[in-house]
Amino acid sequence: MCELLGMSANVPTDIRFSFTGLMQRGGRTGPHRDGWGITFYEDQGCRTIKDPAPCCDSPIAKLVQACPIKSRAVIGHIRQANRGPVALKNTHPFTREQWGRFWTFAHNGQLTDYQALQQSGKHLPVGDTDSETAFCWLLNELDRKYPRKPADMQAMFRYLGELCLQLQQFGIVNILLSDGDYLFSFCSNTLHWLTRRAPFGKARLIDEDVAIDFHQETTPNDVVTVIATLPLTSDEQWHKMEAGYYRLFKNGECVGDST
Amino acid sequence: MCELLGMSANVPTDIRFSFTGLMQRGGRTGPHRDGWGITFYEDQGCRTIKDPAPCCDSPIAKLVQACPIKSRAVIGHIRQANRGPVALKNTHPFTREQWGRFWTFAHNGQLTDYQALQQSGKHLPVGDTDSETAFCWLLNELDRKYPRKPADMQAMFRYLGELCLQLQQFGIVNILLSDGDYLFSFCSNTLHWLTRRAPFGKARLIDEDVAIDFHQETTPNDVVTVIATLPLTSDEQWHKMEAGYYRLFKNGECVGDST
Repeated sequence: MCELLGMSANVPTDIRFSFTGLMQRGGRTGPHRDGWGITFYEDQGCRTIKDPAPCCDSPIAKLVQACPIKSRAVIGHIRQANRGPVALKNTHPFTREQWGRFWTFAHNGQLTDYQALQQSGKHLPVGDTDSETAFCWLLNELDRKYPRKPADMQAMFRYLGELCLQLQQFGIVNILLSDGDYLFSFCSNTLHWLTRRAPFGKARLIDEDVAIDFHQETTPNDVVTVIATLPLTSDEQWHKMEAGYYRLFKNGECVGDST
Repeated sequence: MCELLGMSANVPTDIRFSFTGLMQRGGRTGPHRDGWGITFYEDQGCRTIKDPAPCCDSPIAKLVQACPIKSRAVIGHIRQANRGPVALKNTHPFTREQWGRFWTFAHNGQLTDYQALQQSGKHLPVGDTDSETAFCWLLNELDRKYPRKPADMQAMFRYLGELCLQLQQFGIVNILLSDGDYLFSFCSNTLHWLTRRAPFGKARLIDEDVAIDFHQETTPNDVVTVIATLPLTSDEQWHKMEAGYYRLFKNGECVGDST
Protein backbone atom coordinates (compact mmCIF):
# COMPACT_ATOMS: atom_id res chain seq x y z
CA MET A 1 0.00 0.00 0.00
CA CYS A 2 0.98 3.61 -0.31
CA GLU A 3 0.08 7.03 1.03
CA LEU A 4 -1.35 9.91 -0.94
CA LEU A 5 -1.11 13.67 -0.51
CA GLY A 6 -3.07 16.24 -2.49
CA MET A 7 -3.52 19.99 -2.29
CA SER A 8 -5.88 22.44 -3.97
CA ALA A 9 -5.61 26.16 -3.19
CA ASN A 10 -6.87 29.50 -4.49
CA VAL A 11 -3.39 31.06 -4.24
CA PRO A 12 0.06 29.52 -4.81
CA THR A 13 0.66 27.77 -1.49
CA ASP A 14 3.65 26.15 0.15
CA ILE A 15 3.04 22.40 0.72
CA ARG A 16 6.20 21.80 2.76
CA PHE A 17 4.46 21.47 6.15
CA SER A 18 2.28 18.59 4.92
CA PHE A 19 5.11 17.06 2.87
CA THR A 20 7.29 17.00 5.99
CA GLY A 21 4.69 14.85 7.72
CA LEU A 22 4.24 12.55 4.73
CA MET A 23 7.95 11.94 4.14
CA GLN A 24 8.43 10.60 7.67
CA ARG A 25 6.07 7.79 6.72
CA GLY A 26 8.40 7.01 3.82
CA GLY A 27 10.53 4.62 5.86
CA ARG A 28 10.65 6.13 9.37
CA THR A 29 7.20 6.31 11.01
CA GLY A 30 5.67 4.30 8.14
CA PRO A 31 6.73 1.37 5.94
CA HIS A 32 6.59 3.10 2.54
CA ARG A 33 10.25 2.69 1.61
CA ASP A 34 9.89 2.02 -2.11
CA GLY A 35 10.02 5.49 -3.58
CA TRP A 36 8.19 8.77 -3.48
CA GLY A 37 7.21 11.57 -5.80
CA ILE A 38 5.51 14.93 -5.85
CA THR A 39 4.10 17.00 -8.72
CA PHE A 40 3.68 20.77 -8.47
CA TYR A 41 1.60 22.65 -11.02
CA GLU A 42 2.47 26.18 -12.15
CA ASP A 43 -0.53 27.16 -14.28
CA GLN A 44 -0.61 24.58 -17.10
CA GLY A 45 3.01 23.55 -16.55
CA CYS A 46 4.05 21.04 -13.94
CA ARG A 47 7.23 19.75 -12.38
CA THR A 48 7.60 16.29 -10.87
CA ILE A 49 10.31 15.36 -8.42
CA LYS A 50 10.50 11.63 -7.77
CA ASP A 51 12.92 9.04 -6.54
CA PRO A 52 12.74 5.26 -6.10
CA ALA A 53 14.86 5.62 -2.91
CA PRO A 54 13.15 5.84 0.51
CA CYS A 55 11.72 9.28 1.16
CA CYS A 56 12.80 9.63 4.79
CA ASP A 57 16.52 9.71 3.94
CA SER A 58 16.42 10.99 0.35
CA PRO A 59 18.62 14.03 -0.35
CA ILE A 60 16.22 15.03 -3.13
CA ALA A 61 13.30 14.93 -0.67
CA LYS A 62 15.29 17.16 1.66
CA LEU A 63 15.67 19.57 -1.27
CA VAL A 64 11.89 19.66 -1.71
CA GLN A 65 11.66 20.48 1.99
CA ALA A 66 14.20 23.29 1.54
CA CYS A 67 12.72 24.79 -1.66
CA PRO A 68 9.75 27.14 -1.24
CA ILE A 69 7.92 25.91 -4.35
CA LYS A 70 4.43 27.41 -4.22
CA SER A 71 1.62 25.84 -6.18
CA ARG A 72 -2.18 25.84 -6.48
CA ALA A 73 -2.34 22.09 -7.15
CA VAL A 74 -0.06 19.36 -5.81
CA ILE A 75 -0.12 15.56 -5.85
CA GLY A 76 2.33 13.56 -3.74
CA HIS A 77 2.82 9.85 -3.11
CA ILE A 78 5.02 7.52 -1.06
CA ARG A 79 5.19 3.94 -2.19
CA GLN A 80 5.24 0.51 -0.61
CA ALA A 81 5.66 -1.66 -3.69
CA ASN A 82 3.20 -4.45 -4.41
CA ARG A 83 2.87 -4.64 -8.23
CA GLY A 84 6.08 -3.84 -10.14
CA PRO A 85 9.66 -3.66 -8.82
CA VAL A 86 11.21 -0.57 -7.24
CA ALA A 87 12.25 1.60 -10.20
CA LEU A 88 11.88 5.16 -11.42
CA LYS A 89 9.37 4.09 -14.10
CA ASN A 90 7.17 2.56 -11.36
CA THR A 91 7.29 5.60 -9.07
CA HIS A 92 4.15 7.76 -8.74
CA PRO A 93 2.83 10.29 -9.66
CA PHE A 94 2.32 9.49 -13.35
CA THR A 95 1.62 12.22 -15.91
CA ARG A 96 0.06 12.15 -19.39
CA GLU A 97 -1.14 14.86 -21.77
CA GLN A 98 -4.86 14.74 -22.57
CA TRP A 99 -6.89 17.54 -24.28
CA GLY A 100 -3.76 19.73 -24.32
CA ARG A 101 -3.29 19.60 -20.54
CA PHE A 102 -1.03 17.54 -18.30
CA TRP A 103 -2.99 15.13 -16.09
CA THR A 104 -1.23 13.74 -13.04
CA PHE A 105 -2.30 10.64 -11.14
CA ALA A 106 -1.40 8.80 -7.95
CA HIS A 107 -3.01 5.67 -6.51
CA ASN A 108 -3.22 3.92 -3.17
CA GLY A 109 -4.45 0.33 -3.25
CA GLN A 110 -3.83 -2.88 -5.12
CA LEU A 111 -5.53 -4.42 -8.15
CA THR A 112 -5.72 -8.11 -9.04
CA ASP A 113 -6.59 -9.85 -12.34
CA TYR A 114 -6.66 -6.49 -14.10
CA GLN A 115 -5.68 -7.77 -17.58
CA ALA A 116 -9.00 -6.36 -18.84
CA LEU A 117 -7.56 -2.88 -18.23
CA GLN A 118 -4.53 -3.55 -20.44
CA GLN A 119 -6.32 -2.74 -23.67
CA SER A 120 -5.00 -0.75 -26.59
CA GLY A 121 -5.69 2.97 -26.67
CA LYS A 122 -4.08 6.34 -26.89
CA HIS A 123 -2.25 5.98 -23.58
CA LEU A 124 0.01 3.02 -22.77
CA PRO A 125 1.79 2.30 -19.49
CA VAL A 126 5.59 2.58 -19.52
CA GLY A 127 6.23 0.76 -16.23
CA ASP A 128 4.86 -2.40 -14.62
CA THR A 129 2.42 -1.13 -11.99
CA ASP A 130 -1.29 -1.80 -11.67
CA SER A 131 -1.58 1.92 -10.88
CA GLU A 132 -0.19 3.23 -14.18
CA THR A 133 -2.28 0.63 -16.04
CA ALA A 134 -5.40 1.91 -14.24
CA PHE A 135 -4.43 5.53 -15.02
CA CYS A 136 -4.04 4.77 -18.74
CA TRP A 137 -7.35 2.86 -18.75
CA LEU A 138 -9.13 5.83 -17.15
CA LEU A 139 -7.66 8.30 -19.67
CA ASN A 140 -8.41 5.98 -22.60
CA GLU A 141 -12.04 5.64 -21.49
CA LEU A 142 -12.31 9.42 -21.08
CA ASP A 143 -10.70 9.91 -24.50
CA ARG A 144 -13.23 7.53 -26.06
CA LYS A 145 -16.18 9.41 -24.58
CA TYR A 146 -14.63 12.87 -25.02
CA PRO A 147 -12.32 12.88 -28.08
CA ARG A 148 -12.08 16.66 -27.58
CA LYS A 149 -11.86 18.67 -24.39
CA PRO A 150 -15.25 18.40 -22.63
CA ALA A 151 -17.28 21.61 -22.55
CA ASP A 152 -18.92 20.44 -19.31
CA MET A 153 -16.07 19.49 -16.98
CA GLN A 154 -18.45 18.59 -14.13
CA ALA A 155 -20.11 15.98 -16.37
CA MET A 156 -16.68 14.61 -17.29
CA PHE A 157 -15.74 14.24 -13.62
CA ARG A 158 -19.08 12.52 -12.87
CA TYR A 159 -18.24 10.04 -15.62
CA LEU A 160 -14.76 9.67 -14.12
CA GLY A 161 -16.41 8.83 -10.79
CA GLU A 162 -18.38 6.06 -12.55
CA LEU A 163 -15.17 4.73 -14.11
CA CYS A 164 -13.55 4.64 -10.66
CA LEU A 165 -16.49 2.56 -9.41
CA GLN A 166 -15.83 0.14 -12.29
CA LEU A 167 -12.14 0.01 -11.31
CA GLN A 168 -13.14 -1.10 -7.82
CA GLN A 169 -14.10 -4.54 -9.15
CA PHE A 170 -10.33 -5.13 -9.50
CA GLY A 171 -9.43 -3.99 -5.99
CA ILE A 172 -8.82 -0.92 -3.86
CA VAL A 173 -8.58 2.40 -5.72
CA ASN A 174 -7.97 5.48 -3.65
CA ILE A 175 -7.09 8.00 -6.33
CA LEU A 176 -5.88 11.56 -6.79
CA LEU A 177 -5.95 13.18 -10.25
CA SER A 178 -5.27 16.77 -11.28
CA ASP A 179 -4.80 18.95 -14.36
CA GLY A 180 -3.57 21.90 -12.31
CA ASP A 181 -7.04 23.48 -12.07
CA TYR A 182 -9.09 20.62 -10.63
CA LEU A 183 -8.12 18.10 -7.96
CA PHE A 184 -10.25 14.95 -8.22
CA SER A 185 -10.25 12.40 -5.40
CA PHE A 186 -11.92 8.99 -5.26
CA CYS A 187 -12.08 6.92 -2.08
CA SER A 188 -12.31 3.13 -2.00
CA ASN A 189 -11.61 2.83 1.70
CA THR A 190 -9.22 5.43 3.17
CA LEU A 191 -8.88 9.09 2.27
CA HIS A 192 -9.17 12.16 4.51
CA TRP A 193 -9.42 15.86 3.76
CA LEU A 194 -9.68 19.24 5.42
CA THR A 195 -10.05 22.82 4.22
CA ARG A 196 -8.12 25.59 5.93
CA ARG A 197 -9.50 29.13 5.72
CA ALA A 198 -9.68 32.24 7.92
CA PRO A 199 -9.55 32.44 10.86
CA PHE A 200 -6.38 30.35 10.56
CA GLY A 201 -5.03 28.55 13.60
CA LYS A 202 -2.11 26.40 14.59
CA ALA A 203 -1.49 22.78 13.69
CA ARG A 204 0.93 20.08 14.80
CA LEU A 205 2.18 17.18 12.69
CA ILE A 206 1.50 13.64 13.91
CA ASP A 207 4.70 12.14 12.44
CA GLU A 208 7.28 14.79 13.29
CA ASP A 209 7.68 17.29 16.10
CA VAL A 210 6.77 20.27 13.92
CA ALA A 211 4.05 22.84 14.49
CA ILE A 212 2.92 25.72 12.30
CA ASP A 213 0.84 28.83 12.84
CA PHE A 214 -1.04 29.22 9.56
CA HIS A 215 -2.10 32.71 10.65
CA GLN A 216 1.53 33.78 10.10
CA GLU A 217 1.76 32.12 6.68
CA THR A 218 -1.50 33.14 5.01
CA THR A 219 -3.71 36.04 4.00
CA PRO A 220 -7.38 36.22 5.07
CA ASN A 221 -8.63 35.18 1.62
CA ASP A 222 -6.56 32.00 1.31
CA VAL A 223 -8.48 28.73 0.94
CA VAL A 224 -6.40 25.56 1.02
CA THR A 225 -7.65 21.97 0.95
CA VAL A 226 -5.32 19.11 1.84
CA ILE A 227 -6.17 15.47 1.11
CA ALA A 228 -4.20 12.61 2.66
CA THR A 229 -4.58 8.88 3.15
CA LEU A 230 -4.48 9.40 6.93
CA PRO A 231 -4.70 12.69 8.85
CA LEU A 232 -1.35 14.49 8.96
CA THR A 233 -2.07 16.75 11.95
CA SER A 234 -3.26 15.90 15.45
CA ASP A 235 -5.19 19.06 16.32
CA GLU A 236 -7.37 19.70 13.27
CA GLN A 237 -10.69 18.20 12.20
CA TRP A 238 -10.10 15.88 9.23
CA HIS A 239 -13.09 14.54 7.28
CA LYS A 240 -13.05 10.87 6.35
CA MET A 241 -14.28 10.37 2.80
CA GLU A 242 -17.07 7.89 2.19
CA ALA A 243 -16.17 4.66 0.42
CA GLY A 244 -17.17 4.65 -3.25
CA TYR A 245 -17.52 8.43 -3.42
CA TYR A 246 -15.57 11.06 -5.32
CA ARG A 247 -14.94 14.62 -4.29
CA LEU A 248 -13.81 17.38 -6.66
CA PHE A 249 -11.88 20.50 -5.60
CA LYS A 250 -10.94 23.70 -7.42
CA ASN A 251 -9.24 26.77 -5.94
CA GLY A 252 -9.34 25.02 -2.55
CA GLU A 253 -13.14 24.67 -2.54
CA CYS A 254 -15.17 21.49 -2.98
CA VAL A 255 -17.02 22.02 -6.28
CA GLY A 256 -18.53 18.58 -6.80
CA ASP A 257 -19.09 15.12 -5.31
CA SER A 258 -20.90 11.84 -5.92
CA THR A 259 -24.19 12.96 -4.37
CA MET B 1 17.77 30.83 -29.92
CA CYS B 2 18.72 28.22 -27.37
CA GLU B 3 21.47 25.75 -26.64
CA LEU B 4 21.16 21.99 -26.61
CA LEU B 5 23.03 19.28 -24.69
CA GLY B 6 22.69 15.56 -25.28
CA MET B 7 24.47 12.48 -23.97
CA SER B 8 24.44 8.82 -24.97
CA ALA B 9 26.57 6.32 -23.04
CA ASN B 10 27.02 2.57 -22.65
CA VAL B 11 27.17 2.85 -18.84
CA PRO B 12 25.34 5.22 -16.46
CA THR B 13 27.48 8.35 -16.72
CA ASP B 14 27.70 11.60 -14.79
CA ILE B 15 26.81 14.59 -17.04
CA ARG B 16 27.75 17.26 -14.50
CA PHE B 17 30.98 18.36 -16.21
CA SER B 18 29.16 19.20 -19.45
CA PHE B 19 26.15 20.63 -17.62
CA THR B 20 28.48 22.98 -15.71
CA GLY B 21 29.67 24.41 -19.01
CA LEU B 22 26.17 24.71 -20.44
CA MET B 23 24.65 26.43 -17.42
CA GLN B 24 27.16 29.29 -17.61
CA ARG B 25 25.66 30.13 -20.98
CA GLY B 26 22.29 30.39 -19.24
CA GLY B 27 22.72 34.08 -18.45
CA ARG B 28 26.43 34.50 -17.67
CA THR B 29 28.66 33.70 -20.67
CA GLY B 30 25.60 33.39 -22.94
CA PRO B 31 22.24 35.17 -23.31
CA HIS B 32 19.92 32.19 -22.63
CA ARG B 33 18.20 33.58 -19.54
CA ASP B 34 14.69 32.29 -20.15
CA GLY B 35 14.74 28.92 -18.46
CA TRP B 36 16.54 25.63 -18.60
CA GLY B 37 15.79 21.95 -18.21
CA ILE B 38 17.44 18.56 -18.20
CA THR B 39 16.00 15.05 -18.51
CA PHE B 40 17.83 12.00 -17.18
CA TYR B 41 16.74 8.50 -18.17
CA GLU B 42 16.97 5.55 -15.80
CA ASP B 43 16.07 2.60 -18.02
CA GLN B 44 12.54 3.35 -19.25
CA GLY B 45 11.89 5.87 -16.49
CA CYS B 46 12.99 9.47 -16.71
CA ARG B 47 13.21 12.48 -14.46
CA THR B 48 13.09 16.07 -15.70
CA ILE B 49 14.36 19.01 -13.71
CA LYS B 50 13.39 22.35 -15.22
CA ASP B 51 12.96 25.95 -14.25
CA PRO B 52 11.86 29.08 -16.12
CA ALA B 53 14.43 31.09 -14.09
CA PRO B 54 17.92 31.76 -15.53
CA CYS B 55 20.18 28.75 -15.25
CA CYS B 56 23.34 30.55 -14.13
CA ASP B 57 21.87 31.61 -10.78
CA SER B 58 19.20 28.93 -10.28
CA PRO B 59 19.35 27.10 -6.93
CA ILE B 60 17.75 24.07 -8.61
CA ALA B 61 20.49 24.07 -11.27
CA LYS B 62 23.09 24.16 -8.50
CA LEU B 63 21.36 21.09 -7.04
CA VAL B 64 21.76 19.27 -10.37
CA GLN B 65 25.44 20.19 -10.23
CA ALA B 66 25.67 18.79 -6.69
CA CYS B 67 23.72 15.54 -7.32
CA PRO B 68 25.62 12.66 -8.91
CA ILE B 69 22.72 11.49 -11.08
CA LYS B 70 24.14 8.94 -13.52
CA SER B 71 22.33 8.17 -16.73
CA ARG B 72 22.83 6.50 -20.11
CA ALA B 73 20.74 9.10 -21.96
CA VAL B 74 20.39 12.80 -21.16
CA ILE B 75 18.82 15.78 -22.94
CA GLY B 76 19.41 19.32 -21.66
CA HIS B 77 18.38 22.74 -22.91
CA ILE B 78 18.82 26.41 -22.01
CA ARG B 79 16.33 28.83 -23.47
CA GLN B 80 16.33 32.28 -24.99
CA ALA B 81 12.63 32.79 -25.58
CA ASN B 82 11.35 33.69 -29.03
CA ARG B 83 7.94 31.99 -29.40
CA GLY B 84 5.92 31.78 -26.16
CA PRO B 85 6.45 33.69 -22.90
CA VAL B 86 8.80 32.57 -20.12
CA ALA B 87 6.82 29.94 -18.19
CA LEU B 88 7.24 26.40 -16.91
CA LYS B 89 4.92 25.03 -19.62
CA ASN B 90 7.20 26.58 -22.28
CA THR B 91 10.44 25.25 -20.81
CA HIS B 92 12.23 22.41 -22.64
CA PRO B 93 12.71 19.45 -22.67
CA PHE B 94 9.19 18.21 -23.47
CA THR B 95 8.15 14.60 -22.85
CA ARG B 96 5.33 12.46 -24.27
CA GLU B 97 4.55 8.74 -24.09
CA GLN B 98 4.52 6.97 -27.46
CA TRP B 99 4.54 3.16 -28.00
CA GLY B 100 4.77 2.65 -24.22
CA ARG B 101 8.00 4.65 -23.87
CA PHE B 102 8.71 8.22 -22.81
CA TRP B 103 10.09 10.33 -25.66
CA THR B 104 11.90 13.53 -24.71
CA PHE B 105 12.55 16.42 -27.09
CA ALA B 106 14.48 19.69 -27.12
CA HIS B 107 14.82 22.18 -29.97
CA ASN B 108 17.14 24.98 -30.97
CA GLY B 109 15.87 27.30 -33.70
CA GLN B 110 12.78 29.27 -34.59
CA LEU B 111 9.80 28.43 -36.79
CA THR B 112 7.54 30.90 -38.63
CA ASP B 113 4.08 30.44 -40.18
CA TYR B 114 3.88 26.94 -38.71
CA GLN B 115 0.06 26.79 -38.40
CA ALA B 116 0.16 23.75 -40.72
CA LEU B 117 1.83 21.85 -37.86
CA GLN B 118 -1.03 22.61 -35.44
CA GLN B 119 -3.22 19.79 -36.67
CA SER B 120 -5.28 17.42 -34.58
CA GLY B 121 -3.71 14.15 -33.51
CA LYS B 122 -2.88 12.01 -30.55
CA HIS B 123 -0.44 14.54 -29.09
CA LEU B 124 -1.36 18.17 -28.42
CA PRO B 125 0.91 20.95 -27.17
CA VAL B 126 0.24 22.25 -23.65
CA GLY B 127 2.31 25.44 -23.92
CA ASP B 128 2.75 28.12 -26.57
CA THR B 129 6.10 27.31 -28.18
CA ASP B 130 6.86 26.49 -31.80
CA SER B 131 9.12 23.76 -30.38
CA GLU B 132 6.42 21.80 -28.54
CA THR B 133 4.14 22.18 -31.57
CA ALA B 134 6.88 20.71 -33.78
CA PHE B 135 7.45 17.87 -31.29
CA CYS B 136 3.76 16.96 -31.26
CA TRP B 137 3.64 17.13 -35.07
CA LEU B 138 6.62 14.77 -35.33
CA LEU B 139 5.08 12.26 -32.89
CA ASN B 140 1.67 12.48 -34.59
CA GLU B 141 3.26 11.79 -37.99
CA LEU B 142 5.20 8.85 -36.52
CA ASP B 143 2.03 7.57 -34.85
CA ARG B 144 0.17 7.74 -38.18
CA LYS B 145 2.86 5.71 -39.97
CA TYR B 146 3.55 3.39 -37.02
CA PRO B 147 0.36 2.93 -34.94
CA ARG B 148 2.28 0.25 -33.02
CA LYS B 149 5.90 0.18 -31.93
CA PRO B 150 8.04 -0.18 -35.09
CA ALA B 151 9.81 -3.53 -35.45
CA ASP B 152 12.56 -1.80 -37.44
CA MET B 153 13.68 1.17 -35.34
CA GLN B 154 16.34 2.19 -37.88
CA ALA B 155 13.62 2.59 -40.53
CA MET B 156 11.56 4.66 -38.10
CA PHE B 157 14.50 6.98 -37.44
CA ARG B 158 15.14 7.33 -41.20
CA TYR B 159 11.51 8.41 -41.55
CA LEU B 160 12.00 10.80 -38.62
CA GLY B 161 14.97 12.30 -40.50
CA GLU B 162 12.68 12.91 -43.49
CA LEU B 163 10.10 14.56 -41.22
CA CYS B 164 12.82 16.85 -39.83
CA LEU B 165 13.69 17.88 -43.41
CA GLN B 166 10.01 18.77 -43.90
CA LEU B 167 10.09 20.81 -40.67
CA GLN B 168 12.96 22.87 -42.07
CA GLN B 169 10.58 24.62 -44.49
CA PHE B 170 9.26 26.44 -41.40
CA GLY B 171 12.68 27.48 -40.07
CA ILE B 172 15.69 26.25 -38.16
CA VAL B 173 15.32 22.86 -36.43
CA ASN B 174 18.30 21.61 -34.50
CA ILE B 175 16.74 18.75 -32.56
CA LEU B 176 17.53 16.19 -29.87
CA LEU B 177 15.11 13.32 -29.20
CA SER B 178 15.50 10.28 -26.95
CA ASP B 179 13.54 7.35 -25.54
CA GLY B 180 16.32 6.42 -23.11
CA ASP B 181 17.86 3.88 -25.50
CA TYR B 182 18.40 5.96 -28.62
CA LEU B 183 19.57 9.57 -28.90
CA PHE B 184 18.49 11.09 -32.23
CA SER B 185 19.99 14.39 -33.40
CA PHE B 186 19.07 16.49 -36.43
CA CYS B 187 21.10 19.50 -37.52
CA SER B 188 19.69 22.46 -39.44
CA ASN B 189 22.73 24.64 -38.96
CA THR B 190 24.61 24.21 -35.66
CA LEU B 191 25.21 21.03 -33.70
CA HIS B 192 28.52 19.48 -32.57
CA TRP B 193 29.39 16.09 -31.13
CA LEU B 194 32.29 14.04 -29.84
CA THR B 195 32.73 10.51 -28.54
CA ARG B 196 34.99 9.87 -25.57
CA ARG B 197 36.51 6.40 -25.20
CA ALA B 198 39.76 4.83 -23.95
CA PRO B 199 42.44 6.06 -23.75
CA PHE B 200 40.67 8.87 -21.87
CA GLY B 201 42.40 12.22 -21.49
CA LYS B 202 41.83 15.56 -19.86
CA ALA B 203 39.44 18.28 -20.94
CA ARG B 204 38.86 21.91 -20.01
CA LEU B 205 35.57 23.77 -20.21
CA ILE B 206 35.35 26.86 -22.42
CA ASP B 207 32.80 28.68 -20.24
CA GLU B 208 34.10 28.01 -16.75
CA ASP B 209 37.53 27.45 -15.27
CA VAL B 210 36.97 23.74 -14.71
CA ALA B 211 39.05 20.85 -15.98
CA ILE B 212 38.49 17.11 -15.68
CA ASP B 213 40.65 14.04 -16.12
CA PHE B 214 38.26 11.48 -17.61
CA HIS B 215 40.85 8.77 -16.98
CA GLN B 216 40.06 9.14 -13.26
CA GLU B 217 36.29 9.01 -13.80
CA THR B 218 35.88 6.13 -16.23
CA THR B 219 36.58 2.47 -16.89
CA PRO B 220 38.36 1.33 -20.09
CA ASN B 221 35.12 0.08 -21.66
CA ASP B 222 33.14 3.32 -21.27
CA VAL B 223 31.88 4.97 -24.45
CA VAL B 224 30.25 8.37 -24.03
CA THR B 225 28.99 10.69 -26.77
CA VAL B 226 28.16 14.31 -25.99
CA ILE B 227 26.21 16.54 -28.40
CA ALA B 228 26.05 20.30 -27.94
CA THR B 229 25.05 23.34 -29.96
CA LEU B 230 28.62 24.66 -29.66
CA PRO B 231 31.70 22.83 -28.36
CA LEU B 232 31.86 22.80 -24.56
CA THR B 233 35.58 22.05 -24.19
CA SER B 234 38.61 23.82 -25.63
CA ASP B 235 41.03 20.92 -25.93
CA GLU B 236 39.01 18.15 -27.58
CA GLN B 237 38.13 17.52 -31.22
CA TRP B 238 34.42 18.27 -31.73
CA HIS B 239 32.74 17.24 -35.00
CA LYS B 240 30.42 19.76 -36.63
CA MET B 241 27.29 18.05 -37.93
CA GLU B 242 26.31 18.63 -41.55
CA ALA B 243 23.25 20.76 -42.21
CA GLY B 244 20.17 18.71 -43.09
CA TYR B 245 21.61 15.49 -41.68
CA TYR B 246 20.57 13.33 -38.76
CA ARG B 247 22.82 11.21 -36.58
CA LEU B 248 21.59 8.41 -34.31
CA PHE B 249 23.40 7.19 -31.18
CA LYS B 250 22.88 4.21 -28.89
CA ASN B 251 25.10 3.13 -26.00
CA GLY B 252 27.44 5.99 -26.89
CA GLU B 253 28.06 4.74 -30.44
CA CYS B 254 26.80 6.25 -33.68
CA VAL B 255 24.44 3.59 -35.08
CA GLY B 256 22.89 5.48 -37.98
CA ASP B 257 22.94 8.67 -40.05
CA SER B 258 21.44 10.26 -43.15
CA THR B 259 23.94 8.76 -45.57
